[in-house]
Amino acid sequence: MPSPRHLIRLQDLSDTELEEILDLSSRLDPRSGRPVLSGRSVGMLFFRGSLRTRASLESAVHRLGGHAINLTAMSDFWELEERDGVTMDGRSPEHVRDAAAVLSTYVDALAIRPSAKMQSWDVDRRDERISAWARYATVPVLNMESSLWHPMQALADLLTMRQRLGSLAGQELAITWVHSPEPASAAVVHSLLHAASRFGMRVRIAHPPGFDLDTGVVREAEEVAAASGGGIEFSSSMEEAVRGAGIVYARSWQSLESYGNPTLAASHRSRATDWRITSELLQLGNDVGLMHAMPVRRNVEVTDEVLESDASLLVKQAGNRLPAQMALLMHMLRAH
Amino acid sequence: MPSPRHLIRLQDLSDTELEEILDLSSRLDPRSGRPVLSGRSVGMLFFRGSLRTRASLESAVHRLGGHAINLTAMSDFWELEERDGVTMDGRSPEHVRDAAAVLSTYVDALAIRPSAKMQSWDVDRRDERISAWARYATVPVLNMESSLWHPMQALADLLTMRQRLGSLAGQELAITWVHSPEPASAAVVHSLLHAASRFGMRVRIAHPPGFDLDTGVVREAEEVAAASGGGIEFSSSMEEAVRGAGIVYARSWQSLESYGNPTLAASHRSRATDWRITSELLQLGNDVGLMHAMPVRRNVEVTDEVLESDASLLVKQAGNRLPAQMALLMHMLRAH
Amino acid sequence: MPSPRHLIRLQDLSDTELEEILDLSSRLDPRSGRPVLSGRSVGMLFFRGSLRTRASLESAVHRLGGHAINLTAMSDFWELEERDGVTMDGRSPEHVRDAAAVLSTYVDALAIRPSAKMQSWDVDRRDERISAWARYATVPVLNMESSLWHPMQALADLLTMRQRLGSLAGQELAITWVHSPEPASAAVVHSLLHAASRFGMRVRIAHPPGFDLDTGVVREAEEVAAASGGGIEFSSSMEEAVRGAGIVYARSWQSLESYGNPTLAASHRSRATDWRITSELLQLGNDVGLMHAMPVRRNVEVTDEVLESDASLLVKQAGNRLPAQMALLMHMLRAH
Repeated sequence: MPSPRHLIRLQDLSDTELEEILDLSSRLDPRSGRPVLSGRSVGMLFFRGSLRTRASLESAVHRLGGHAINLTAMSDFWELEERDGVTMDGRSPEHVRDAAAVLSTYVDALAIRPSAKMQSWDVDRRDERISAWARYATVPVLNMESSLWHPMQALADLLTMRQRLGSLAGQELAITWVHSPEPASAAVVHSLLHAASRFGMRVRIAHPPGFDLDTGVVREAEEVAAASGGGIEFSSSMEEAVRGAGIVYARSWQSLESYGNPTLAASHRSRATDWRITSELLQLGNDVGLMHAMPVRRNVEVTDEVLESDASLLVKQAGNRLPAQMALLMHMLRAH
Repeated sequence: MPSPRHLIRLQDLSDTELEEILDLSSRLDPRSGRPVLSGRSVGMLFFRGSLRTRASLESAVHRLGGHAINLTAMSDFWELEERDGVTMDGRSPEHVRDAAAVLSTYVDALAIRPSAKMQSWDVDRRDERISAWARYATVPVLNMESSLWHPMQALADLLTMRQRLGSLAGQELAITWVHSPEPASAAVVHSLLHAASRFGMRVRIAHPPGFDLDTGVVREAEEVAAASGGGIEFSSSMEEAVRGAGIVYARSWQSLESYGNPTLAASHRSRATDWRITSELLQLGNDVGLMHAMPVRRNVEVTDEVLESDASLLVKQAGNRLPAQMALLMHMLRAH
Repeated sequence: MPSPRHLIRLQDLSDTELEEILDLSSRLDPRSGRPVLSGRSVGMLFFRGSLRTRASLESAVHRLGGHAINLTAMSDFWELEERDGVTMDGRSPEHVRDAAAVLSTYVDALAIRPSAKMQSWDVDRRDERISAWARYATVPVLNMESSLWHPMQALADLLTMRQRLGSLAGQELAITWVHSPEPASAAVVHSLLHAASRFGMRVRIAHPPGFDLDTGVVREAEEVAAASGGGIEFSSSMEEAVRGAGIVYARSWQSLESYGNPTLAASHRSRATDWRITSELLQLGNDVGLMHAMPVRRNVEVTDEVLESDASLLVKQAGNRLPAQMALLMHMLRAH
């Protein structure tokens, strides 16, 4: 059996494939999908909670005539072992290689949202859990957000930016950290940085001290940007990043430097409570559209005023997850 | 975009609409629904547990060819903020206005069972959570039981009473409180009172001290009854209420007077442990059919003898939720 | 209404029916099922967690064009009373007879995985919970593993053994206990023992002291084996059981002798930590295929070496649950 195609990171798609998926996304009418997945099932395994990903992917599968089987770790599932060769006398009753092999016989694709150990970034950045699923599944594995990457979000983000800006090459994208009492993972920003670099965007990233992105991800994105004619700059000022940008992408990501150290992380955040998107800030941009992967804490990350303004692309962006994922499913399952 | 139609309370349907839905309910064969919802999805969001509502609505969606996406707050979801204008630095990471707007892009209707705060009846009676969903969703919102109303149950109740009694005008309905160690909400009785009044039934309500229904609901129902030729009477005696009735509807509802005060509520209940439906009681009626929205505590709320007798309409009534909700979905989603 | 057909144990199927189901299972292509369950729903109620059963049965229903409604006790459900005639003033708000009657009006079959009380084997072996569902449901009830039986697993096991051995009569099957820190129930082995006996296999069962199977199940299987020309032998040595066998079936089952006594059970297990399937052991067999109902604790129950060898039938066996359950559904729901 040939090895199945997986989507763990956007890098798993060639430029041609990525272009095809985006083109298809923009042409699809989600309300009248053809039943190209008729008789096919997609297993969705959540080891962490989800709203948008769960609802939009399940809807995407349904609208294409397929069936989504939802497995929630907390009620249906158990902790899986992912290390090879261990003597399994601990908490995990099952190895991911066995779960992956078996589920592959029941469904046509496996979408996985793994949990992270949250102790060490050096460990979690390896994405060992989603990688183990990909290694042992005999059907395509789709990453529904790992520690390092969130490729489905990036597809919707690319679609949203194209709808707003047209061609992305040379366009200015500001990615800015915002304050939140419960920051999200950096996966969304990592995938966005790669995606924007690949399309030749000029990216400026602003964040307070202690919130550097993953160095491996940044280095790779810089190489991609160099090849595509784009570029990446860092700043410690939201204003500097936003000035002249056509898109501002706000995200509150965890401190990787103080990963696994909640006290230190809270201390980092406490010095940056004013990192918030306001109307004044956005006026520095160039007819700015604001993006945010949601959930968004109103008046903490972004003001109500901005969210209710025409600048906000948030609902359109979240809505784009549906056609983007329909196109992705059609591509990965070769269903046209 | 025109504002979508919602069903928060039965009052949201005109007399003509209500008549159409009931007629359709009684004509439908649930086992052979036409796939009029083909390609359409209904999001079901449960912030509290459910058996009948969850199973019957999901089955209704399926039997019409649509897809139900089930989101359970405990595992898939999180606490949502519903107040406008607040600085969201507390527990809720997302505002209902954003969740409602986004989910509206994935599904064709949203069925919501909100939780209640359970502190103050004055607060919970405002139904702020379901109202917030209705305000911000761009697809129809269907109430799967809020603090104040349970319109889907009322549709099945109307259908059941019609099947038993024929035309409802002038018919005698006894609604009686029954004892339970864990009383349910008053929502079922509120919606029933409105529904019965609207169809001109003569309603008698019996309950022990401390268990008055919501005064606003009663006042509105009295106005409706006055217009329809029906009437509402209160009693402190089950026997008095049941005498001559064609339908007895049993329900153990919470004390609104001692809402949020479990000790006082238990004290109220402890003086009414003999409020139970027995064969002797039902003999006071006029060829009585017994209704109850279930779950029913056997030999506490209703005796086994009654439940196994021909007088019990409980299973038929619960079964009627399926055709009633199929008809409701067809109406609300304009799918015929 | 005639009483519906249930599948609580494999004994509920006649020889002819069992043969038909197995034949259909082996002919079915799970990837291209005909939509014979179109418009029909199967309710799946889990009072305990599940991976393979949940995913394979839901996939089976979908691939036949039907809909599975998943009800998980922990989030959707509550504790049900199954004793008749009690005054329900305790924790259970609903009686299984009412839940079964109502759910029967919404779905076309009910698949149940009951929980057990785990106090006394004499009590749990009666399978009172699944029996109560069968008594009160008006649609077929399918057992998704009770304390005593797991007939769906047995169907997949029979299919797997046939694929490996051809005709089963006279073939040698070794069932051996293996060590695990968290043993499973004996239900899988009970159903397997009945199934193998029915097809005339020569069964040898090995287990350490304290792990006798249910005496009622064994006695009945011995009678079945006597009639079919098969036979059952017991041994306290894995090697003795495996010698000459064509199939070795490994399972870590609970001690029924120390049921409800975790300390005593752990003590029994601690003296049998070397009961593990190794390559050396399997060489005693006759071109052995290894079966195991999973989940399997690697290097505790079975070594990695064996699991990665050609002798391992585990993934094929788990995969067989899909066609076996598709065939079962077609049979029980008379959908061809």
